[in-house]
Amino acid sequence: MSSEHLESYLSGRWVRGEGVETQLVDPVKGDELATASTKGVDLKAALEFARTQGQGGLRTMSYAERGKLVGALADVLIANRARYEDIAIANSGNTKTDAAIDIDGGIGTLKYYARLGAGLGDARMLLDEKPVRLAKAENYQAIHLMMPRRGVAIHINAFNFPSWGLWEKAAVSLLAGVPVLAKPASSTALLAHAMVKDVIAAKVLPDGALSLLCGGAGDLLDGLTSDDVIAFTGSADTARRVRGHAGVVAKSVPVNIEADSINAALLAPGSAPASAAFDAFVREVVREITVKAGQKCTAIRRIFVTADQADAVADALAAKLKGTKVGDPRQADTRMGPVVTRGQQAAAFDGIRRLASEAVIVCGGADAPELDGIDSNRSAFVAPTLLKLADAGAAAVHEVEVFGPAATIVPYRDEADAVALVARGGGSLVASVYGEDQAFLARMVRAIGPSHGRLLMVDPSIASAHTGHGIVMPQCNHGGPGRAGAGEELGGLYGLRFYHQRLAVQGSSDLLASLETTAASLH
Amino acid sequence: MSSEHLESYLSGRWVRGEGVETQLVDPVKGDELATASTKGVDLKAALEFARTQGQGGLRTMSYAERGKLVGALADVLIANRARYEDIAIANSGNTKTDAAIDIDGGIGTLKYYARLGAGLGDARMLLDEKPVRLAKAENYQAIHLMMPRRGVAIHINAFNFPSWGLWEKAAVSLLAGVPVLAKPASSTALLAHAMVKDVIAAKVLPDGALSLLCGGAGDLLDGLTSDDVIAFTGSADTARRVRGHAGVVAKSVPVNIEADSINAALLAPGSAPASAAFDAFVREVVREITVKAGQKCTAIRRIFVTADQADAVADALAAKLKGTKVGDPRQADTRMGPVVTRGQQAAAFDGIRRLASEAVIVCGGADAPELDGIDSNRSAFVAPTLLKLADAGAAAVHEVEVFGPAATIVPYRDEADAVALVARGGGSLVASVYGEDQAFLARMVRAIGPSHGRLLMVDPSIASAHTGHGIVMPQCNHGGPGRAGAGEELGGLYGLRFYHQRLAVQGSSDLLASLETTAASLH
Repeated sequence: MSSEHLESYLSGRWVRGEGVETQLVDPVKGDELATASTKGVDLKAALEFARTQGQGGLRTMSYAERGKLVGALADVLIANRARYEDIAIANSGNTKTDAAIDIDGGIGTLKYYARLGAGLGDARMLLDEKPVRLAKAENYQAIHLMMPRRGVAIHINAFNFPSWGLWEKAAVSLLAGVPVLAKPASSTALLAHAMVKDVIAAKVLPDGALSLLCGGAGDLLDGLTSDDVIAFTGSADTARRVRGHAGVVAKSVPVNIEADSINAALLAPGSAPASAAFDAFVREVVREITVKAGQKCTAIRRIFVTADQADAVADALAAKLKGTKVGDPRQADTRMGPVVTRGQQAAAFDGIRRLASEAVIVCGGADAPELDGIDSNRSAFVAPTLLKLADAGAAAVHEVEVFGPAATIVPYRDEADAVALVARGGGSLVASVYGEDQAFLARMVRAIGPSHGRLLMVDPSIASAHTGHGIVMPQCNHGGPGRAGAGEELGGLYGLRFYHQRLAVQGSSDLLASLETTAASLH
Repeated sequence: MSSEHLESYLSGRWVRGEGVETQLVDPVKGDELATASTKGVDLKAALEFARTQGQGGLRTMSYAERGKLVGALADVLIANRARYEDIAIANSGNTKTDAAIDIDGGIGTLKYYARLGAGLGDARMLLDEKPVRLAKAENYQAIHLMMPRRGVAIHINAFNFPSWGLWEKAAVSLLAGVPVLAKPASSTALLAHAMVKDVIAAKVLPDGALSLLCGGAGDLLDGLTSDDVIAFTGSADTARRVRGHAGVVAKSVPVNIEADSINAALLAPGSAPASAAFDAFVREVVREITVKAGQKCTAIRRIFVTADQADAVADALAAKLKGTKVGDPRQADTRMGPVVTRGQQAAAFDGIRRLASEAVIVCGGADAPELDGIDSNRSAFVAPTLLKLADAGAAAVHEVEVFGPAATIVPYRDEADAVALVARGGGSLVASVYGEDQAFLARMVRAIGPSHGRLLMVDPSIASAHTGHGIVMPQCNHGGPGRAGAGEELGGLYGLRFYHQRLAVQGSSDLLASLETTAASLH
């Protein structure tokens, strides 16, 4: 792959920014793959093009028609899938499994929302609630509709899912009729760029329905109006800048945030080694540490087990982590690749050192591993790292997110202690609980539920059937309170709400009936 | 009424701030009624008390039990209603009709949510969506629950509805199990203070479930955590400070905003004078200008009529406005009182002058009216003011909200022009449309809906039965996009969402069924 300068697709054409703002680098070999810049690009004009041309094309369509567009996106990606895997391996250091989660996750989400669109049929608005009486007169009532917004959706995506992040947001937005201006994280933008290039070349979308910004966001947010929305996935620091942006605040631009998160997995008390719950727990924790080299916002960071089982769990996890082949994902036996950049590697090492101030390192650590045929001065590898808390009063484990292949065992005394410790994460995307006692699982849902956006409760009957702690299913809510950003994405039809305005219509029963029959039910 | 120093109810006791930060004044006579200050008050401790004591008391209750509490609040207020009317007249310059909207609106909303609570029964969480399949295995599925949040709700209320604003927010929050710390606007806090005093004395709520802050907010927002929420009603400027507050942004504290709004009423083309639509339109516009001296966030500010009817509408409105008796609301024939303070009077005059730079004043204006027995140097009266746009290219009418008894006639050419002009308000809480052609009304719902939170569509069959452009019904969404703050309040059970965390639970069918049977359905 020779280095190319990534153009942005804005105002209906490919445009080139001046100079080089970002280098995209292979995190195994250290070679430059591409450069990006948005300097000198007219972002205000791009927004206006999306708002007029993009809206114009999408607004007149029904949900079913837009669902077909979303399905057509999936078809284009499926037709070009082989190339995407190579890009994901080169630019993100993905294994084939990692690449599949990103690429097929995006395609699957598009197909899912295409099906939902078909189910909504010929309607152009959604019915949220049927008529309710408001006064004595029976013919004066109210209904609640959801009306597609009239602006453009700014999608700011994270570096870890250049494909899935792009399409899971675009699928929902386009189905709702809201054109998309997507900004992938610069460091791994090669895959998003290639995919959008194929989609544009295939001419499956109306003009202006999809724009792509490769490089820095520049003054993008300054150009937003109150018709627009922002969906952001990334770090808490950048999330703060987006949500607190003066123009965004002043114009009440709706903002959905998915930020980092100190997710938990918890093994029920009394789950003996080799029991179904114990094995399911260990298998899932190892998967979460190693898949995508731990670079999932949903990945398990805290491993809760009763104090008397901490050593048994540490042994079982360490055995599997030490046996995980780390290296160049181009080699068939590699099970875990590098993190995406040397900057991310340095940040992960820094985090591991902070955790290690309160915990012992069971395996891995804060130094670049020595790997056959890999130049540690040019690559971005982090060894699978397990820590175990020494001090029950530790704070860092609940505050420091290592965005890499690292997690910490946190021993707990009893159920109440476990609940209190889980809550110290300050709100997260997902927690999973493993146990055989259904009453315990039900109690945990009630006790830890309000701090999370999703719970995976694993009893032996689904130990091998479940979809995984870290895998985001389009049917399920994705987002969490507090530290996780207090956002809500996906979750089936519910995800469409963010791109709609909720509207009470008060009027005569006749009028409301005529509106109701032309709206598709959200429920 | 002798002047009193308003104490705040915090940490389970009445506490007095140091000195005087705010004077509460009778806007008819200019006399001081009370003073308020929160200087030296420990707000962090008050928040923690609400979060522990208040949450502790509410969390263990079912929705039905909390519904009974909400109903008990209504009973206390009903028992003391006569005193409240006197306070509303003295501190807010309300007529008895104005006072009833505020006081009975609050009581009615409490009773409405008490009934909803009874309907939710013994449950302690809500079911948002029934199980959906996630994989091939039939016994692995997901449900969506709504779990009550674990923090305290900060309710920052506006000066125009010291009763309704307090109780419409508290009803929903308490039913959800989230304790309330309410901060009424200082200038009209006397009514909220008296009501909370009665509620506390009646001992109908658990300790910490309801706190009241009379005076400035001080460092209140600095003490919030990501478990808390903020519901704000007031000016766009203050809304910006709340939403953009560094701690609120950093902790992803959910914020719901109701800000000012340039609401519209529109008369359909071809509605001849003396037709049912014309008469309903004129009656409603006059009511909106004069009720509460125009101090409703939902009040009509822009009056859209076809150019050929502008004069007829202006004549009909001016005749009624000139006949409206303005004066001391203690006199039986008074139909409109003052605005709440001389500061608000000055702001209204300033706004009228800005509108008048692009419009002619049909009646009223930017000077204090001469009124029998009223000292214009101590009172805060604004005459009912009607303006008519001279220039179709005017901008101020779409941007300047006069928060008083003033509105502007905006002539439109045709349907498309009307839609474009309405949208120039930048998003608002409510618009109303008056006409006899149901197809026109249905088209308008689709065309202007996305810029509003509520539409009132008046055809002759409901001309006398509807509940009014400006009246917020608890069954209906209250909030609007853009300038209106992009909030959502009330709207029946939907209003509970803000005080809950949406949660996907993935697990075995058995576990989900056991959770489902203990949750009340949101739909």
